[in-house]
Amino acid sequence: MKDRLLTPGPAEVPPETLLELAKPVFHHRTKEFRAILMAVTQDLKDVFQTKNDVLIFASSGTGAMEASVVNLLAPGDKALCVRGGKFGERWSELCERFGARTINLDVEWGQAVRPEAIEAALRKDPDIAAVYVTLCETSTGVAADVEAIGKVVATSGACLVVDGISGVGAMPMKTDEWGVDMLVVGSQKALLLPPGLAFLSVSPKAWARIEKAPRRAYYFDLRAARKALAKEDTPYTPANTLIAALKKSLDLLKKEGLEAVWARHTRVAQATRAAVEAMGLKVYAARPASALTAVLLPDGVDAEAARSLLKKKYGVAVAGGQDQLKGKILRIGHLGYADTLDLLGAIVALEMVLAEMGVPVPLGAGVAAAQKALLAR
Amino acid sequence: MKDRLLTPGPAEVPPETLLELAKPVFHHRTKEFRAILMAVTQDLKDVFQTKNDVLIFASSGTGAMEASVVNLLAPGDKALCVRGGKFGERWSELCERFGARTINLDVEWGQAVRPEAIEAALRKDPDIAAVYVTLCETSTGVAADVEAIGKVVATSGACLVVDGISGVGAMPMKTDEWGVDMLVVGSQKALLLPPGLAFLSVSPKAWARIEKAPRRAYYFDLRAARKALAKEDTPYTPANTLIAALKKSLDLLKKEGLEAVWARHTRVAQATRAAVEAMGLKVYAARPASALTAVLLPDGVDAEAARSLLKKKYGVAVAGGQDQLKGKILRIGHLGYADTLDLLGAIVALEMVLAEMGVPVPLGAGVAAAQKALLAR
Repeated sequence: MKDRLLTPGPAEVPPETLLELAKPVFHHRTKEFRAILMAVTQDLKDVFQTKNDVLIFASSGTGAMEASVVNLLAPGDKALCVRGGKFGERWSELCERFGARTINLDVEWGQAVRPEAIEAALRKDPDIAAVYVTLCETSTGVAADVEAIGKVVATSGACLVVDGISGVGAMPMKTDEWGVDMLVVGSQKALLLPPGLAFLSVSPKAWARIEKAPRRAYYFDLRAARKALAKEDTPYTPANTLIAALKKSLDLLKKEGLEAVWARHTRVAQATRAAVEAMGLKVYAARPASALTAVLLPDGVDAEAARSLLKKKYGVAVAGGQDQLKGKILRIGHLGYADTLDLLGAIVALEMVLAEMGVPVPLGAGVAAAQKALLAR
Repeated sequence: MKDRLLTPGPAEVPPETLLELAKPVFHHRTKEFRAILMAVTQDLKDVFQTKNDVLIFASSGTGAMEASVVNLLAPGDKALCVRGGKFGERWSELCERFGARTINLDVEWGQAVRPEAIEAALRKDPDIAAVYVTLCETSTGVAADVEAIGKVVATSGACLVVDGISGVGAMPMKTDEWGVDMLVVGSQKALLLPPGLAFLSVSPKAWARIEKAPRRAYYFDLRAARKALAKEDTPYTPANTLIAALKKSLDLLKKEGLEAVWARHTRVAQATRAAVEAMGLKVYAARPASALTAVLLPDGVDAEAARSLLKKKYGVAVAGGQDQLKGKILRIGHLGYADTLDLLGAIVALEMVLAEMGVPVPLGAGVAAAQKALLAR
């Protein structure tokens, strides 16, 4: 039986990229690697839709989140954190840890933040230095309306910082057009690479704040990273083989075209949601992201048991719920290399698993609804 | 022409491990990955010769160096940093950045720190909280006598923190026997992996200090890492495919046996030094490490030109000098997967390159001396 990785990250990586990772290791302080580093940086700018600086770190996405806090904020600066899931909570924890006066804008899990709520918070505290939001809240499957939030934040002096770790590549993110000052992205989601790299874009507005803030970071010091990049280098040993493999993945995305990549994710996400509803289940997110679908199972049905059966019987790996959602939801990833038939396979398997668990699911109904959604486009 | 990677890191990686990196990506919150994580952690303890906790980070070695500073020291704590090269300077920069009262023990580049000098510094400042040293100073090729330093530090209340990034695996490091409280290691040196992972061992003495220090780290928070590891997990997404590939490399080291691995490095290092001297060149380090040989070229001979010719004509990649040593030395790595004939090939090439540059090198003399050294053992 094949393993089918449909978690919302790490996501499946194309064989072209995997083969790149099997190539001999090379030195990083060479003309050849400098060319790769600069090409990857440019490709990332294209994917992020930005002319801002883009810096690459050997770390998980959380490392770049930390970089966007510890460099941007001086101790005592006010930070507004939107908390509507695990990753919003991480923003709040990071801001607290690094001494910001943290204002939490709590949103019910499964709901998206209302841009008006951010507007009201900024009006109440006009000296808020930064607003931290999550493009795709991976714990709930909710998408934030970053475009609308960007309009609100642009009228204030605050910087807008977006966790796009699981969202970027799977759904539109127009960094410059939407006024996103810092964008955090991870390698192991829609960018088609294993975990190990994180990316951060930095706008001139963010740099202005960073330059006034005390220098508190070292490994994640953005000024050091920018200075090194100006010399086509990194301050510390880069994960050079991952960066070289990323070039291959970004070439694949470029070949397909960014708009087409987004449209593909939208299409599969819509089909997945149609299937879920036709099976009599609920899509958990009020404003669903295109990177994953969080499926709420009926009361009394153990989502962890379903997840375990999916893996055991059909090799389908999906994620479960975290914290208060543990045992209640399944999170099906449809980002990156996963294609339409991979997702339809997961639907087929989910129907069978639920039937086996005694949940009254009309066999084939989810698949038919997904097919219909796909054909209607 | 083949590429022959003989830099002091990144170092060559065995094909078995490279093939592991080409395998499909998998999810990290699974029984299978938990088993790999715990097995790798145990194998690392064996290589580091310790029963202390060993924590794994997705970062370059500098990230784990930062972890050993920001977690261990409270602002204002006194730190003694041995500075005899680029990486000793990094300790000092890190301690400064994170608010320690940093006492620099400067050592002439190319010389090893005298343990008596550390003893004297500890006597003068009995409230020094930590002593930061470098097992193998990659910028100069110097090995520190960590065993003797450990004896000195053990008589004080200070913790001993060792940068073993390029040294561990290539030369003896007996963490517990020598009283090393924190040991930093990188993946891309003698541990036979590409860059991307860093490791840190933490002794009970270090934990006692860490628990009293304010919690200033997040991504590199050691308390969070230990808590997660107790549940066979990591706080943030681990670079799981690198960790799985590391298992393969550690299996290879285990099969050979740690003592045999050290002896192999010693043998090749001695042969390299014998060759260098027979060619009429100088070994730069007064107390040379087994991970690399820094070769001082005669006055007026441009080491960068030699390095460039080595690569261009024979595919041999070695490193040049950094900072004040730029253009003066070559650094030949003989760590990890590089074997005897790889090194002899580099010697052959170096003889030819220098002859071509007009340096009076007796052709074959370096090779003969290396052969003699190898046969004498």
